[in-house]
Amino acid sequence: MKEKILAEAERLFWKYGVRTITMDDIARRLAISKKTIYQHFTDKEDIVYQVVEWHMTHEQNDYCRLKEKELNPIEEIVLASNMMRQHADKVNPSLLLDVQRYFPKAWEVFLKHKENHITKDLIDNLQRGVEQGLYRSDFDIETMARLRIELIQLGFDERVFPHQRDVYTTQDQLLDHYIRGILSASGLASYEALKTKVNEYNLSIYENK
Amino acid sequence: MKEKILAEAERLFWKYGVRTITMDDIARRLAISKKTIYQHFTDKEDIVYQVVEWHMTHEQNDYCRLKEKELNPIEEIVLASNMMRQHADKVNPSLLLDVQRYFPKAWEVFLKHKENHITKDLIDNLQRGVEQGLYRSDFDIETMARLRIELIQLGFDERVFPHQRDVYTTQDQLLDHYIRGILSASGLASYEALKTKVNEYNLSIYENK
Repeated sequence: MKEKILAEAERLFWKYGVRTITMDDIARRLAISKKTIYQHFTDKEDIVYQVVEWHMTHEQNDYCRLKEKELNPIEEIVLASNMMRQHADKVNPSLLLDVQRYFPKAWEVFLKHKENHITKDLIDNLQRGVEQGLYRSDFDIETMARLRIELIQLGFDERVFPHQRDVYTTQDQLLDHYIRGILSASGLASYEALKTKVNEYNLSIYENK
Repeated sequence: MKEKILAEAERLFWKYGVRTITMDDIARRLAISKKTIYQHFTDKEDIVYQVVEWHMTHEQNDYCRLKEKELNPIEEIVLASNMMRQHADKVNPSLLLDVQRYFPKAWEVFLKHKENHITKDLIDNLQRGVEQGLYRSDFDIETMARLRIELIQLGFDERVFPHQRDVYTTQDQLLDHYIRGILSASGLASYEALKTKVNEYNLSIYENK
């Protein structure tokens, strides 16, 4: 039951934002009583906290499975950057901002995960890309790793890109630009081949995982 | 006298941060009395406000002069992005953050300037670059314009890049990556030629203005 509540809470948070959704909403959606929810969570803040923790663990597991496929670093960065799309159709654009502002404990979990896992995974990806000649070798790896994480957060911030309603379009633009900025000449050829292949099959690059 | 006070206040703010510097510091540096300062400014907040306004006007004038040179868009974006280096040797990394947090009126001036001038100038630059075939034509121009502004702010945030002490190195990395991300193949050739030329003469690209 706890897993079921976490999954539904996450889905609702992604779609409607973390502030709008109440305990009642979650109970109603799952056709359970609020009492059942309170058996597993002390309050709304606790749900948000555990959803973030749960999401981060899942994301890390997804990423481990992705690494096992031994894709080339370019494919890996494209797919990994878009794992956030797996669980929701539409993302509420204020999600990250609201967690940051109103749920500091949950935000802390996100920050720790960012520091301990995402940064390290990106550094590892960039190092492999440089070694394989797919990325340029003249940039500072840690700066570019940290930049990528900031760009994902930035892409969710509706105040920064007010002209775009769709968070995914912004994320696609930022990802495409980011990758082109780190590629070597041979990496660029390989990235464009990847995009062509995806287009030919009329697939989203992200469904390809 | 007012101009002299603004210039010295700006220099001190850039170097030591906007919170550290007091009215006494400014008076002492200029060997004038505090009374003289109060003839032109009501309080510290007023100085910060007017320094930001003054700086933005200067920056805009510099940019107008830069545009009159009719450089190619790549040279222009490199030089324009680095106009902030003109006035200070070292930048206090918390400058922008402190203005944002503690001097909301001055921050408002910065935001308005960003919206009314910097975004428009960047959109104009990107459009010309696309027309001239130096930039790719498959990105969203407004997204890329807004991204560049965010990157400049990000580069000043010491929490984001804690491994780098020097704000300029971060800014260089972000600028180089940004430009590479928007260039077409012929734009890349032209950008690399520009960098080689600068290196050959052992000049900083930024002193070239």
